[in-house]
Formats: sequence, structure tokens, C-alpha cells
Amino acid sequence: MSDFRQKALDYHAFPTPGKISVEISKPAETAQDLALAYSPGVAEPVREIAADPDNAYKYTGKGNLVAVITNGTAILGLGNLGPLASKPVMEGKALLFKRFANIDSVDIEVTHRTTEEFIQVVAAIADTFGGINLEDIKAPECFEIEKALIERCNVPVFHDDQHGTAIVTAAGLINSLEVQGKKIEEAQIVCMGAGAAAVACMQLLIKCGALRENIYMLDRNGVIHSRRDDLNEYKALFANNTDKRTLEDVMDGADVFVGVSGPDVLPAAAVTMMADKPVIFACSNPDPEIKPELAHATRQDLVMGTGRSDYPNQVNNVLCFPFIFRGALDVRASQINDEMKVAAVDAIRALAKEPVPQEVLDASGYESLTFGKDYVIPKPMDPRLLPRVARAVALAAVASGVARTELPENYMLD
Amino acid sequence: MSDFRQKALDYHAFPTPGKISVEISKPAETAQDLALAYSPGVAEPVREIAADPDNAYKYTGKGNLVAVITNGTAILGLGNLGPLASKPVMEGKALLFKRFANIDSVDIEVTHRTTEEFIQVVAAIADTFGGINLEDIKAPECFEIEKALIERCNVPVFHDDQHGTAIVTAAGLINSLEVQGKKIEEAQIVCMGAGAAAVACMQLLIKCGALRENIYMLDRNGVIHSRRDDLNEYKALFANNTDKRTLEDVMDGADVFVGVSGPDVLPAAAVTMMADKPVIFACSNPDPEIKPELAHATRQDLVMGTGRSDYPNQVNNVLCFPFIFRGALDVRASQINDEMKVAAVDAIRALAKEPVPQEVLDASGYESLTFGKDYVIPKPMDPRLLPRVARAVALAAVASGVARTELPENYMLD
Repeated sequence: MSDFRQKALDYHAFPTPGKISVEISKPAETAQDLALAYSPGVAEPVREIAADPDNAYKYTGKGNLVAVITNGTAILGLGNLGPLASKPVMEGKALLFKRFANIDSVDIEVTHRTTEEFIQVVAAIADTFGGINLEDIKAPECFEIEKALIERCNVPVFHDDQHGTAIVTAAGLINSLEVQGKKIEEAQIVCMGAGAAAVACMQLLIKCGALRENIYMLDRNGVIHSRRDDLNEYKALFANNTDKRTLEDVMDGADVFVGVSGPDVLPAAAVTMMADKPVIFACSNPDPEIKPELAHATRQDLVMGTGRSDYPNQVNNVLCFPFIFRGALDVRASQINDEMKVAAVDAIRALAKEPVPQEVLDASGYESLTFGKDYVIPKPMDPRLLPRVARAVALAAVASGVARTELPENYMLD
Repeated sequence: MSDFRQKALDYHAFPTPGKISVEISKPAETAQDLALAYSPGVAEPVREIAADPDNAYKYTGKGNLVAVITNGTAILGLGNLGPLASKPVMEGKALLFKRFANIDSVDIEVTHRTTEEFIQVVAAIADTFGGINLEDIKAPECFEIEKALIERCNVPVFHDDQHGTAIVTAAGLINSLEVQGKKIEEAQIVCMGAGAAAVACMQLLIKCGALRENIYMLDRNGVIHSRRDDLNEYKALFANNTDKRTLEDVMDGADVFVGVSGPDVLPAAAVTMMADKPVIFACSNPDPEIKPELAHATRQDLVMGTGRSDYPNQVNNVLCFPFIFRGALDVRASQINDEMKVAAVDAIRALAKEPVPQEVLDASGYESLTFGKDYVIPKPMDPRLLPRVARAVALAAVASGVARTELPENYMLD
């Protein structure tokens, strides 16, 4: 067994199984404490919530509690291994929520037969939480699931594999284009992959200014175009009225390649065909669509991002999801809408242009980081992400009318 | 607003809403830590669990995680106030699980239309947890729900309002009979109330030796007898072939009165009619079926228990549920069966006969406590409950063939 494999298993197994626990946050030692926490004192907040459901935010943990919910149909890059096998990932997500945004988070693994049943189960337990983070649910079911749950739940529902990925990718891509002196409105974009992340990425890029007709999406069968009859409704949104059919056809003159597919599917020859000053985000993890060494050797005028921490410009969802939920929870947003997603993109973009504090350099192992080819996106351990992204998201929630409380005074200002 | 009411609300509201939180139990500071906790390291335990589901107990928190699940239809003594209003109670239960048995516990409030839907929702999320504690679900639906979930879930399902109450009541009652020099097999028993707790109490008393024909159960319409045609199937189990119709009819010569109904329903005149050396457990809380002062004034030869902490012999579920789950989890029991319930009764009974340590006296405000009329049941803050009850339950699980692991060596021995 490899050293890292053993370390990862030991980390999860010892000294106690797992990596999160539930703890008591109020005094609970004496009989007097317990008379407040449970019977008879607990009857008082019960009555208050029965009188006004909003009081749940005042007297329970609901307002800081996010459920990480999955059915285990698309676990990391590992595929459909079922709900139970996904539990370490979901607990990991809960750990990241706490670590980065002090959000209490619990994992729920759902066993179900039909998509409708999954939706029903999540909707039935949704009131328990202040927000729902859907995770590792395969496409195309994930689209229907998220749409239905947004309609049926009173709290924000956010499929991180779609929108977290989309937000961080969009922030990195648009900054990359800026470094290359290009505009998103004019960029020819190739998207390799047509799953949850791909669809969400392209939809968000359009919200950020990209033109739908400039986007070429590819699935296993090649370019998605308007004469294909094998497209689900989500892929069909990106069906281009074009004669281009192959990766090479669309890479010819492309400004941007976004890979959310699998390892080594982008040949160097296709990179050669891209426009001047291209941008490649090869997000397949751990093995990107093209090895960075090969891509850079092929094109010296390249800006490149990957999902990996050992190369520059890491696209990592942790740059977004803890903070977008933090902002949403703190103004009790009823949903996470497009305005909030775009605000997150802009906040992440802006942070990459600021000087990087020494502690972030130390944590990421760099001597210096300056906005440019090798630094288009903040580092995951940057503590400024919390205040910047959460504040931007909360402000956008208020401005777009989905906040149910006012912005707390001096919210997330240093 | 009363002082206590304000204190209870403040306890729940400040400094942060609620009383439990989720915390990180493994190192999670550096990028290296997070590479083990999440991507890429987390893939290793995922693969292990996909290969063998039992590995979930090794690499995740499942084995120490109990869900407290309700639909809010029978909240404390407050009635059907809906799922959200029950959240403070469920969080309180989670707090008690942690406080008394170091069990991680999360609350789930379920909104549903039909009983079948509730069952389906809980079954769908059950794999997330190592055990399920059903709470504050009204009768008779709670019986059907528990039965169906025991069949459908791979983890123990326990409706505490039924069985927790039954175990603690049985322990107290049988010890009381012993103090009075009587045998459970010969006791004439009156049970006022025919809800979840009443049915479970009487069923468990029968397991402990009481004779079904010696039990008279009463609901709103009086004695439950075999010529009534208004009985659900659970009440029907206790339909007695008798001409007795009223409380007075059955109290005449009764050895035991168990009240799980409502305040002040037991008149002193009925107490006068009981046999020599009677036992009264008036468990309605906070106002018992008869005031202890009145009962003792009526019968000096009485042993009495209530649900209240300010009188001797408090019947409190916290004497049982944290520890029965602790024992069940620690041998990975597939269910909590009758053998384990009876083992819990016996362990609680036995502890009441042991000398009481000074710390327990101090915590409960007594100078001394000796097995007898005023001390038939241990105090809720007695730290010996954990090892004694958990060990007895785990041993019973092993002996009755529902344990899925061996008893840990020297388990819960001092």
C-alpha cells in the first residue's frame, strides 16, 4: 500500500473513526443547566417557534446549519459507488464548511429508487437546516433535483459540483482572459465535457458576458450541435448551429478551453491550433485533460489552470462554497440566485488582484504571488476569502431581494 | 415573563442560537491535512467502503452517530406543534446523548403527509447513522412507524417515548414492589393512559413478569375491556375480560398505579382503595396525576415516583436512552431487542441498591440515599449509569445474537 494511501486511511480511522463530531455549545454540566437545555426549559423556545417559525433562527442551530446531501451517484472522480461509500466525502465537505466558514454541517446519504423519491426525501427534511448543499449527484438527474428542491424548500439549495465549480472556474477564466488582454464577450470557448459542472460553468460564463454562440460544448459524441437528436434538455441548451463536429474543428482559433471531462483528452496538436494567447482550464482531477508541462511546452503564450494544488492557478471549490453559504446564511437568503453567484465570481476575481499577505505565501509555499499568468485566482488557504466573498454574496442577496434579514452592521468588514 | 422562562430563552439564544455544534475532530489546519481529509485522500476510505460497507464504521463517524428524528406530532406535553417547533427538543436530546454517553447526535425534523411517507423518508436516510432515536411522535402512528423502520433499517431504531420511559418506569416500579415486599408476578396493576408510553410500559412489565390479566389499562373512555369496540390494535392488546368499568373499580385492591396521562386525574379517594403498601408512579410532567403531598397524606404506606426532579424517585428517560444506545453502538447491534431492554431494567435496578458516591449526593442535593421508599431508582446525574447500563445492554445484545462485533475487551469495566 502506498504511503499516502495508508496515511489517508489512518487519518480517517484513528484515534476515532471519522473526522467530525457533534459538541455541546452551551453549559450542560449541572441539573440546572439541563433544566434549561431540556425539560422543562426547552418548552419555552418550542412555544416561541410554534408562534413564529422565524424564531427557529433565534433559538436553534438552524441558521448556521448546512446539510451536505448526496445519493452517491457521482463520487469525486470515482463514479456511482452508492450512498454509504460517499460518506467520507460528505463528512469531508462538512469539515471544510467548518474549517473555512465556521458553518455547522452534517452529511446525509440518501438511498432511493427514483429521482422523485430523492427529491421528496430531501424536501421532507429540509426544514431542519438553514441551507442544503447537494453533492456528488450525477447528471442529468442533478439538474432536475436541484430545480425541484429550489422550488420546494424554504432554504437555499446549492449543487456545489455545478455552481461551486462554475463560480471558481469563471473567476479564474475571466481573470486569465484579462491577463491575456481579451474580453469574455469576444472569447471563443470550447468546453470539453457536458455533465453537471460543464453545463453550470457555461451557463455562468454567459451570465458573466460570454456569448452563447461562441461556446462549443463537446460530449462523448463530439460537438453538441443543433442537428443532433441524442441530447438531453440541458445539453440541448448549448446545441450550436454549426458544421463543426470534432475537437479539432472547434479548437481552431479558440481562445479558451475548459476541460471538465477526463484525463489526457486534449492533444497537443489541438492546443497548437488555438488563437494567440490562449487560456486552458483543465479541471479533471487528479489527472487533467492535458499535462501542464505538455501544454506549456506547446504554447508559451498560455495561461493555464488545473484542479491540482501542485501547479499554479488551482480551481478548487473550497474557494467558494463555504463563503457563498456564509453570506447566504447571514442574511437568511431564501435562495442562492445568479446575482449572488456573479457577486462571488467578482469577489474572487478582485481578491486575486490584491497583494498577497505573507501568511498566505507561507501556507502555499510561494515566495511571492502577483496577479498574472501564474496567479489568476486566490489560494485556497487565503483567509481573506471569507470576508470578501461572504460580504459580496450577502450584499447581492439583499440587493436582489432574496435576503430575509438586513445585512448585519459592518458585516465582514475588517 | 417569568424568570425561568426568560432564562430558558436566553440559554437558547445567546451567545449563539441553539446548543449543539459540529466540530472537526482531526487535524485540518494545513493543506497537507486537507489533502488527507478531502481530495485526494478521501478517495481511499471511499474505495474501502465501496468494497465492504462495514468499513463505514472504521473510516466515518457512522458508528457513533445517532439521529434524533421526529415529525413534531407529540412534543413533550405540548402536543402537535409541527416539526420545526420541535427542533429545540431534538437538539436538547442530541445534547443529552453527548453529555451522558459521548454519542454524536443530530436532529432531523420531518415534514410529511402520510405515515408511510414518514417511514420512507427515515428509511432513505438511515444508512447515514449508526442508530435512530425516534422522538415525540404521537400514538398510535408511532407504533406502526417504529415497527416498519425496525424492519427496513440496518441500524437500531428506538422510540424513546415508548421504550426509554418503559425501561425506567419498570426499573422503578419493580424496585418499589421489592421495597414493599411484593412480587411483580402477583401485582394488580392499573395503568392510566393508553398512549405510546403506556402501551410500551405495560408490554415491558409483562416481559419482566407481570401477568397480562392483572393489568387494567384506562383511556379517556374508562377501563379498556374486551367488549369495547373503539380500540386500536395496540389498546386491544390490553383489553381485559372484566366487568370493571371505572378508575374506582380497578383501583379497589390495586397494588400499582402507573400514570402516563395528565395532571390531577387520580383522586385521593381512589388511592384510599388500593391494597396495603401500594406503589404509585405518577409520571405526567410537570404536573403528576396526583400531587405527591396529597398521595403521601392519604397513604403513609406508599412508595411513589414522579417525573419531577424536586421529589424522590424521578422517572427520567435520561437514565436509559444514552446508555442503551451506547451499548448497542459499541457492539454494533442490529436492533435494540427485548433482551437488551430487560438488561437495562435490571442494570438500573441493581445500581439503585448500591451505595451512592458523594459526588452523586452533592449533585442531587441529598445528604444520603439508601435503597428504600425514597430511593428506588438512581439519580440522573449518576456517572455509574454509563458503564453499568451500557455494559449490560451490550452483553445482552451479544447473548441474544444481534451484536455484529464482539464485546470490546474489558468493556465498561472500571
